[in-house]
Amino acid sequence: MTRFLINFSYDGSNYNGYQKQKGLNTVQGKIEEILKFINNSKITKLHSSGRTDAKVHALNQYAHVDIDVNITEYKLKSALNSLLPDDIYIKSAKIVDNNFHARYMVLSKEYMYKINMGEYNPIERNYVYQYCKKLNIDKMRDSIKYFIGKHDFTTFSSIDDISKNCIRTIYDANISENGDYLIITFKGSGFLKYMVRKMVGTLIMVSEGKLSKDDIVKMINSKDKSLVKITAKPQGLYLSNVEYKKI
Amino acid sequence: MTRFLINFSYDGSNYNGYQKQKGLNTVQGKIEEILKFINNSKITKLHSSGRTDAKVHALNQYAHVDIDVNITEYKLKSALNSLLPDDIYIKSAKIVDNNFHARYMVLSKEYMYKINMGEYNPIERNYVYQYCKKLNIDKMRDSIKYFIGKHDFTTFSSIDDISKNCIRTIYDANISENGDYLIITFKGSGFLKYMVRKMVGTLIMVSEGKLSKDDIVKMINSKDKSLVKITAKPQGLYLSNVEYKKI
Repeated sequence: MTRFLINFSYDGSNYNGYQKQKGLNTVQGKIEEILKFINNSKITKLHSSGRTDAKVHALNQYAHVDIDVNITEYKLKSALNSLLPDDIYIKSAKIVDNNFHARYMVLSKEYMYKINMGEYNPIERNYVYQYCKKLNIDKMRDSIKYFIGKHDFTTFSSIDDISKNCIRTIYDANISENGDYLIITFKGSGFLKYMVRKMVGTLIMVSEGKLSKDDIVKMINSKDKSLVKITAKPQGLYLSNVEYKKI
Repeated sequence: MTRFLINFSYDGSNYNGYQKQKGLNTVQGKIEEILKFINNSKITKLHSSGRTDAKVHALNQYAHVDIDVNITEYKLKSALNSLLPDDIYIKSAKIVDNNFHARYMVLSKEYMYKINMGEYNPIERNYVYQYCKKLNIDKMRDSIKYFIGKHDFTTFSSIDDISKNCIRTIYDANISENGDYLIITFKGSGFLKYMVRKMVGTLIMVSEGKLSKDDIVKMINSKDKSLVKITAKPQGLYLSNVEYKKI
């Protein structure tokens, strides 16, 4: 048995999310189907850094997988890419220590959220949130810093999230502007389901004057999920990077 | 009867090209279906600046249409956008003179072709040609200038093109580099079917050392369609602008 860490990107548009679900088209399900074929018909589980929701994209997702057949890093990568559909791409496959775990050894994850403040663009409708109005970037920058640090993010988690521990650390959060586009990035120890989209939705409400920066602190402290009124659309969200602990 | 000039953009990925064809999903067919509904169930023909092929996109396509019902520019735009699918977007609808014609009064058209020279990107697979290797931009720039001017472009037309007159003028042609991306633009009096994609394919062959810049001149003069070995993929092509004569 050889453990491989695979680094891959995908267009989430045509998938019911990353995580395998019976009868649904998922990124994990699709890759495991090919892995089983490569791994001598053995059911081969992909252990990823974490899930992404339906319609969410990944520029750099990581997962480990145990392969019994004798195969090189290069051949595993090319076999997967030859057999996978063109909306999933294996960037690399590296042999790692048998103790490596793609979820438990995550050091940090980075998400990026793209917003178009200009005219609606049909070509980017699945890849950029088409907000199509100017955002108040100064207000958003003033507010986003309140997310940074170690907090209980219960408020910004999904209604159906039953995690016992909603404490996460956000190491960094930035907003950059490029013409009509706004790129919001969050780097943290981990993220709860919908957390990035709920933080972005809240920043949009700040921009629209419906919330103030002080409300963000109150919202975090309240642990009241009903206070978040906007979960930004999945189409603008990208898992952009994952960092691992050295072993 | 009021004649409107509509300016629109579309993602060509899910269409069998712009031009209406019985039983096929086309951009023109889709818009005419909605126009008929708006125009009191009357068959309402859209006269565009020209066609685009299957999978080709438009940032700025133009067409005129005659409407019998009383409707303002703003209401025509918003009625169309409300009823059209989200991969077609009406940017504006302007009342024009009854003598205006969206095809015959074209002054120039501009096409843009996008190439990714970096790693394959599944997220952009329908919007950028995934060449995934470095191109020799100096060689391509040295060669592209031979397309500029008034020429008989028979060589660079489709095998099934039966146009009697293949003389077109290219006013300008440019190559710009942005990181891993190459953007090739052509501005001309008009373009034959596949012409831009055949010129781009030929420039790629020049980059690969399979043709020299002198071959371009010979190819143009030969009027021999079989000399063009590569028609670049439609996914990277965008109709980016159309200019009209003042009337």
